[in-house]
Amino acid sequence: MKKLLILLVCICFSFFLSAQQVTRPSLVYTDGLSLNLIGQAFPLQNSYHRIDTAQYRDFPVVIKRLLTQAAGLVISFKTNSPRIAAKWCVTNSRAGNNMTPVMNKGLDLYIKRDGVWQFAGVGRPDGVCNEYTLVQNMDETEKECLLYLPLYDEVKSLSVGVDSGYHITAGEDPFKKMKVAVYGSSITQGASASRPGMAYLARLSRDMGINFINLGLSGNGKMEKEVADMLAGIRADAFVLDCFANPSPDQITQRTAYLVKAIRTAHPNAPIIMIQAGFREGGNFDSAIANIARLKDKNVWDAFEKLKKEGVKKLYLIRGDDLLGRDHEATTDGIHPNDLGFDRMLQVIKPEMVKILGSVY
Amino acid sequence: MKKLLILLVCICFSFFLSAQQVTRPSLVYTDGLSLNLIGQAFPLQNSYHRIDTAQYRDFPVVIKRLLTQAAGLVISFKTNSPRIAAKWCVTNSRAGNNMTPVMNKGLDLYIKRDGVWQFAGVGRPDGVCNEYTLVQNMDETEKECLLYLPLYDEVKSLSVGVDSGYHITAGEDPFKKMKVAVYGSSITQGASASRPGMAYLARLSRDMGINFINLGLSGNGKMEKEVADMLAGIRADAFVLDCFANPSPDQITQRTAYLVKAIRTAHPNAPIIMIQAGFREGGNFDSAIANIARLKDKNVWDAFEKLKKEGVKKLYLIRGDDLLGRDHEATTDGIHPNDLGFDRMLQVIKPEMVKILGSVY
Repeated sequence: MKKLLILLVCICFSFFLSAQQVTRPSLVYTDGLSLNLIGQAFPLQNSYHRIDTAQYRDFPVVIKRLLTQAAGLVISFKTNSPRIAAKWCVTNSRAGNNMTPVMNKGLDLYIKRDGVWQFAGVGRPDGVCNEYTLVQNMDETEKECLLYLPLYDEVKSLSVGVDSGYHITAGEDPFKKMKVAVYGSSITQGASASRPGMAYLARLSRDMGINFINLGLSGNGKMEKEVADMLAGIRADAFVLDCFANPSPDQITQRTAYLVKAIRTAHPNAPIIMIQAGFREGGNFDSAIANIARLKDKNVWDAFEKLKKEGVKKLYLIRGDDLLGRDHEATTDGIHPNDLGFDRMLQVIKPEMVKILGSVY
Repeated sequence: MKKLLILLVCICFSFFLSAQQVTRPSLVYTDGLSLNLIGQAFPLQNSYHRIDTAQYRDFPVVIKRLLTQAAGLVISFKTNSPRIAAKWCVTNSRAGNNMTPVMNKGLDLYIKRDGVWQFAGVGRPDGVCNEYTLVQNMDETEKECLLYLPLYDEVKSLSVGVDSGYHITAGEDPFKKMKVAVYGSSITQGASASRPGMAYLARLSRDMGINFINLGLSGNGKMEKEVADMLAGIRADAFVLDCFANPSPDQITQRTAYLVKAIRTAHPNAPIIMIQAGFREGGNFDSAIANIARLKDKNVWDAFEKLKKEGVKKLYLIRGDDLLGRDHEATTDGIHPNDLGFDRMLQVIKPEMVKILGSVY
């Protein structure tokens, strides 16, 4: 009698389970590399690295590591699935104390609606390998999607899940009309955006329809000759130098000309846009920090003026004075813009970019 | 000969070390509890908890834990030291994936200049017990300082370090003219501000000179009767209910009246300000999330109208529609405002607060 009862319970439970499966279809995963990966400086097969550093043996080790991080990489796809999920693996590195894990190791999904890229959901990381539903309960119309990869970690593998019975295919590159290589610092790489899609270059790409290639190298945008030569080799329509928070004031004086001229030689007509680092909020009360920041901006200005006088054309400078506003609230840690800071930066930088590059929309 | 050389090097090195010590005085630490701790709802000795939960045995366990977290607590002190450091211990809890460790477990220092509280530096956490220099290289004038404690962790101990030879004393409470108890959700508690001083209540206190007491209970602002009774017992000049993201739509209908009436009975003339939760960005494409958020806002509105009709005076409602703007960029994860979101919330909430409470500046 007791055995019969247990059997009965088991049967009921398995019915219950299969009923669950009927109401929620299973997820079918597609390798991200078989979709359309956007944001790499050079064509690069089968990798979520920004640059194939095997090609650049002389780069400092730290730069090779930073270039394995997926900052600025985006997967474009189309699907009619009501649900979009992802599986992805990153490294076991510790997240920065000024960063959210969602930005550092997570994913960020945008979907186009009414011609505008709109936030749809994040992929929250929980360890080295993760699985997360980014959005669900959507209608079944086909949608164009952009999945932003982690800004501060290497992506070892990634696949996108949709409900079985629905399709997923590679999407177009919405930013293909113009490519701009942006060499920079941690701020360029995206610290301290709250999620990958909030890095200022990601926002600028969505706003302007331009492919801003993220070559931000956290703490290491120091204009080494080897890196300058690599940058000059990128087939881009324009170049942005947003690296000046990282080199010392002397390094700015010594190295800026080589970098600008290397790019100019390889690209006689490409606009080159320098962005001053601007006021460092950690220097609001710390006079030593404030003095160094001022000196850096002065040396950037002097290097710019000297290059102009030497006849370098189409060289532009965006001043740093007002990038973060004046209330000192726009950073996470006195160095890195928070999302309010990035918003303010865009209010200064975007109109200048539109003036210089035009908007392709 | 070789031994002599080693001896000589050792002597030189020890001279070098003591010279270092002369140029940089050692830090002298003062227990934070001997300074002026601001932000607790009731007088509470020797603790960085928000509420003495031993007094409230019937609270759900999770709420007791959340009330040990130091959200909204600030240490006021004065010092003429060129350097300010801190030692502090928190728990070994894992930081949220939508939070920076600086906000979750770190410190945030503001200093008054020209009558305005300005950001001076953060204390970056690195483990359970931490030591960090928040700012240095300052002039030697006496300064009023506010040190914000971690928003999402318990502070077990904390001491403030200044250079030896300089003084540190308890500061005034700059917000003593008016006290407003704010009961709420994770958003109220401060997720996902980038650092403790960027929580919207912290910004509002600095802007308005009012002591907004942070009783945000991450995920648990569900208006339980026991919690309502505790809130009604707070000696505050006004009450804000920013909790409506947490209860179910039904709970809003069932519980709001009891909470409002409990406060009204204990405080016949205190303004009571309800804030709708507003649009949930995770519902931008997820129709289920959007529907629940809409229903919650409707039920808040209905409860408000009903209470007004029943004759409850000085009851106000701030609508949720435009708290985060319309571009869907203002959250970290589809739920919690990032610093851009908090900035937008303040643009809606602050003028309403000024209208209802007046500014004490």
